Amino acid sequence: MAKRIARSVIEFSKAPAILGQAAVAGKIEAEGPLAGKFSEVFMDERLGQPTWEQAETALQAAAIMHAMAAANCSADDIDLHIGGDLINQCTATGFALRDENIPFAGVYAACASFALALALAANLIESGGMQHVSCCGSSHFCAAEKQFRYPLELGVQPTPTAQRTATAAGAIVLSSASDKPKPRITRAIFGNVIDMGVTDPSEMGAAMAPAAWDTLRRFFQDTNTQPSDYDLILTGDLSQIGTHLLHELARQQAGLDLALVHRDCGLMLYDLIAQDVGTGGSGLGCSAAVLCAEVLPRMLSGELKRVLFIGTGALLSAVSPLQGESIPAVAHGVLIEMT
Amino acid sequence: MAKRIARSVIEFSKAPAILGQAAVAGKIEAEGPLAGKFSEVFMDERLGQPTWEQAETALQAAAIMHAMAAANCSADDIDLHIGGDLINQCTATGFALRDENIPFAGVYAACASFALALALAANLIESGGMQHVSCCGSSHFCAAEKQFRYPLELGVQPTPTAQRTATAAGAIVLSSASDKPKPRITRAIFGNVIDMGVTDPSEMGAAMAPAAWDTLRRFFQDTNTQPSDYDLILTGDLSQIGTHLLHELARQQAGLDLALVHRDCGLMLYDLIAQDVGTGGSGLGCSAAVLCAEVLPRMLSGELKRVLFIGTGALLSAVSPLQGESIPAVAHGVLIEMT
Repeated sequence: MAKRIARSVIEFSKAPAILGQAAVAGKIEAEGPLAGKFSEVFMDERLGQPTWEQAETALQAAAIMHAMAAANCSADDIDLHIGGDLINQCTATGFALRDENIPFAGVYAACASFALALALAANLIESGGMQHVSCCGSSHFCAAEKQFRYPLELGVQPTPTAQRTATAAGAIVLSSASDKPKPRITRAIFGNVIDMGVTDPSEMGAAMAPAAWDTLRRFFQDTNTQPSDYDLILTGDLSQIGTHLLHELARQQAGLDLALVHRDCGLMLYDLIAQDVGTGGSGLGCSAAVLCAEVLPRMLSGELKRVLFIGTGALLSAVSPLQGESIPAVAHGVLIEMT
Repeated sequence: MAKRIARSVIEFSKAPAILGQAAVAGKIEAEGPLAGKFSEVFMDERLGQPTWEQAETALQAAAIMHAMAAANCSADDIDLHIGGDLINQCTATGFALRDENIPFAGVYAACASFALALALAANLIESGGMQHVSCCGSSHFCAAEKQFRYPLELGVQPTPTAQRTATAAGAIVLSSASDKPKPRITRAIFGNVIDMGVTDPSEMGAAMAPAAWDTLRRFFQDTNTQPSDYDLILTGDLSQIGTHLLHELARQQAGLDLALVHRDCGLMLYDLIAQDVGTGGSGLGCSAAVLCAEVLPRMLSGELKRVLFIGTGALLSAVSPLQGESIPAVAHGVLIEMT
């Protein structure tokens, strides 16, 4: 049974186990600090496909395949796949699932979609309704640039505040049972839509930081915990500017110092000095890949025991800023504990 | 506790109650067979907004407000809102929730999104994790035409097989407890992605019928039931061609006659003889509005007791058919019983 701790904050007493995980990435991601930690690396940005969109579909399919192999299960074992991406109408995910015989539920919370998928998957297992649920999140630099910004062929310079959309995917298989010590999802929180009036789609970190803080603040309050109760608070993806703003919000509004315990996936995927990636990584695949390639293995090795993973998403479209809309954001989270 | 009946088929023993529901619609929808059954009708297709996208946001906000009023609860009572739409990056929904203080999870399964939202919401309540969850689905004719087909100003003729995207929204408040007889969600099924190779985006009914049949077939088999066990099997939205194909598939593959018990929301929203709506209605708001304006009230009046609601969605984008992709489809369902 799940327990309602507070509004939209759930505790999972059975604690669904992360049976296996995998991350795949493109060339630039594989040359960063997480080099050697991906299950597969694609040096060809098209992954042998005719279009960027189809390349992202192939990226997803590879991540799902590797996660199922890591969990030692087959497609037939999976009761449901929950996933999403940033391409219009979540097509990268839908097409990836077309060739699998796995029931599929699509979610959309922009770059918070992977955290949202994990929260919903944990609840489906905790309720007793399912045994194995897989989750995947992806993004592709070229597909996202084409859709949200400019054609790559135009060679437009990114603005100084821009983040780089990661070419990456991460996938996880959650299970109702595991006899081995595994990272387990013990709590979940669903976020409010927060809009502080940022209108520049190159200022994603600034648009999302208040949503991350709103979710963190509620989670601390509703679970009666504080930053030092966690080995790691992992957001994805605020990058440089958003991280600075999140720390400022925590300091000003609650007197909390997040610097010691907080890291952001957008600052972990790339080397911001050696690589030309703006203020850090972004895109749904960034946090999914960093969680799967770096953080979960560090939990399995015993280095980290309690990780609060907060996905942050900007709920805009390519059209909405041109219509004068500001950028709403949302942050969903799961607490992952090694038990 | 939920019970896993089979892969992706869940039984809810506590049976979350539909505490209240509402549907809102545009002018043409309000002139059809469901005239007088909407909580609010908008004669101005822009709903007083500067853009079609913002008009759809206003449509969603109205449906949610009316559903909460019908359920006699306020925004503060809702633990989570689950919803979606067809506009790129689910912005109609995200923007509608921006002004509410309600945690928000976005889903995407095209026109099956409302059924998907109901299935996930029922599980969140059944698990004990939440008390009240609201769901909404919407579509807007002008926003969808602009995004998926041609600018309205161009005056392009629809093809003979085309369906009309409904300007409508439906919303529901689900609850863990109700002391009155209410329609309750007792089972859910999540669908596989099915692609039989249809490449014409004006042939949505043909693309979705095999997905509807795959989900129906599995549900009959896994729950050991047959069409005559239901007062109504309600799909949304196959319209004329898809309905014909679904009946053919059931007859050829399982010897079943669906004609007596099956109706399609796309054929219930409009009068196909008197109104110029092609082969029937489509769009996420069509099935959401027909369920909320017509079917749930008929359950409350005692006329219908067991309704199997199967949402059908075409998982394409505006770009994917131009890249030579065929149209994958998915169908999710919930069993609603009056108890």
